[in-house]
Amino acid sequence: MQRHFDDELAALKDKILRMGALVEEQIQEALRALVNRDEALARQVILNDRRVNTLDVEVDEACLELLALYQPAARDLRFITTAMKISTELERMSDLAENICERAIELNEEPQLKPYIDIPRMAEKALKMVWNSLDAFVKWDSKLARKVLEDDDEVDDLTGQMFRELLSFMIENPQTISRAIRLSFISKYIERIADHATNIGELVVYMVEGKIIRHTNPPPVE
Amino acid sequence: MQRHFDDELAALKDKILRMGALVEEQIQEALRALVNRDEALARQVILNDRRVNTLDVEVDEACLELLALYQPAARDLRFITTAMKISTELERMSDLAENICERAIELNEEPQLKPYIDIPRMAEKALKMVWNSLDAFVKWDSKLARKVLEDDDEVDDLTGQMFRELLSFMIENPQTISRAIRLSFISKYIERIADHATNIGELVVYMVEGKIIRHTNPPPVE
Repeated sequence: MQRHFDDELAALKDKILRMGALVEEQIQEALRALVNRDEALARQVILNDRRVNTLDVEVDEACLELLALYQPAARDLRFITTAMKISTELERMSDLAENICERAIELNEEPQLKPYIDIPRMAEKALKMVWNSLDAFVKWDSKLARKVLEDDDEVDDLTGQMFRELLSFMIENPQTISRAIRLSFISKYIERIADHATNIGELVVYMVEGKIIRHTNPPPVE
Repeated sequence: MQRHFDDELAALKDKILRMGALVEEQIQEALRALVNRDEALARQVILNDRRVNTLDVEVDEACLELLALYQPAARDLRFITTAMKISTELERMSDLAENICERAIELNEEPQLKPYIDIPRMAEKALKMVWNSLDAFVKWDSKLARKVLEDDDEVDDLTGQMFRELLSFMIENPQTISRAIRLSFISKYIERIADHATNIGELVVYMVEGKIIRHTNPPPVE
């Protein structure tokens, strides 16, 4: 029984990592679609969101089954309930990758406003947070999880900076308004991806240390 | 043991409803602060977010304890894991009420752009969805939960409509840009509150019917 349970837990861990890898790919491809103005790729990312959704459902069912069949306690119980919550966070990130693609498709209808330099940089930081948060989860590494929380400030700063830049574009030349707004939405989506990674980091700290640290920081200014 | 367990389940239900009532109040007060340009109230709502966070932690701990002590199965297990997820959704709604207040405070630095008519209307619809979703949860009413999903389309339409209106303000008069953008953020926050209610609705349908319906609709266009 214990052995079987351990196998099932390992399988759950794998599923979360697979889901994480897929979400990471979705975000990367969304950015590529934006930067290369590649509408076909954007549409592909939108379609692929279904694969993430399928994994989310699978994780949920696997967790419920583990809880029902093995009635785990303490450490294992916390691992499983944390996995359930992480899968929701990952699924929302994939929705945001989809939103990036929707805006990218709209942006293609007009000439490019400016070279995209800050947005890919922000996305790279956010992606690193996503990866670290999942790594922290599977390794029970609360130190790494706390690093994710720290990194979130950087992404928030970049969003603020970008917003001010876009605002000055709009004020100088009202013809840029709709494009600048779409770009500011995209930077918000990336900020929200980083927020979801932060949520995972907080869940991991709680799982490992049994301490609830979410809600100790003020929420991000949006 | 069963009796004690039933009492604990009832207490959990109460806690979720109390949290829901508090979140509803936070959203209402945030809107009042916006409409009446009442900065003191806005700051109060921001402070009160802590109370919601405390309840979120309490719900989580109560659920873990129930799972560990009583090893519930089937219906009860699903109720408890659903409660854990609902509490996360409610907590995020309260963060959005806080974001509304932050924008309201910023908006107070300039004269009012236009009378606020659509935003309170949207908020009213979103609040009704929140309330129905929680009602559906405690009553195991999947029909009511499905109604919440339908209502979400209306809020999405209103956000789109509002965004187009604000865009024309900005294009006509660039001096309105920063105010119009802040208002469009606020309408997005309300749309996201409605999305969280929709998430709860989907969780309830799953809890009642054992059917996962989330992911069957395309995600909202943001």
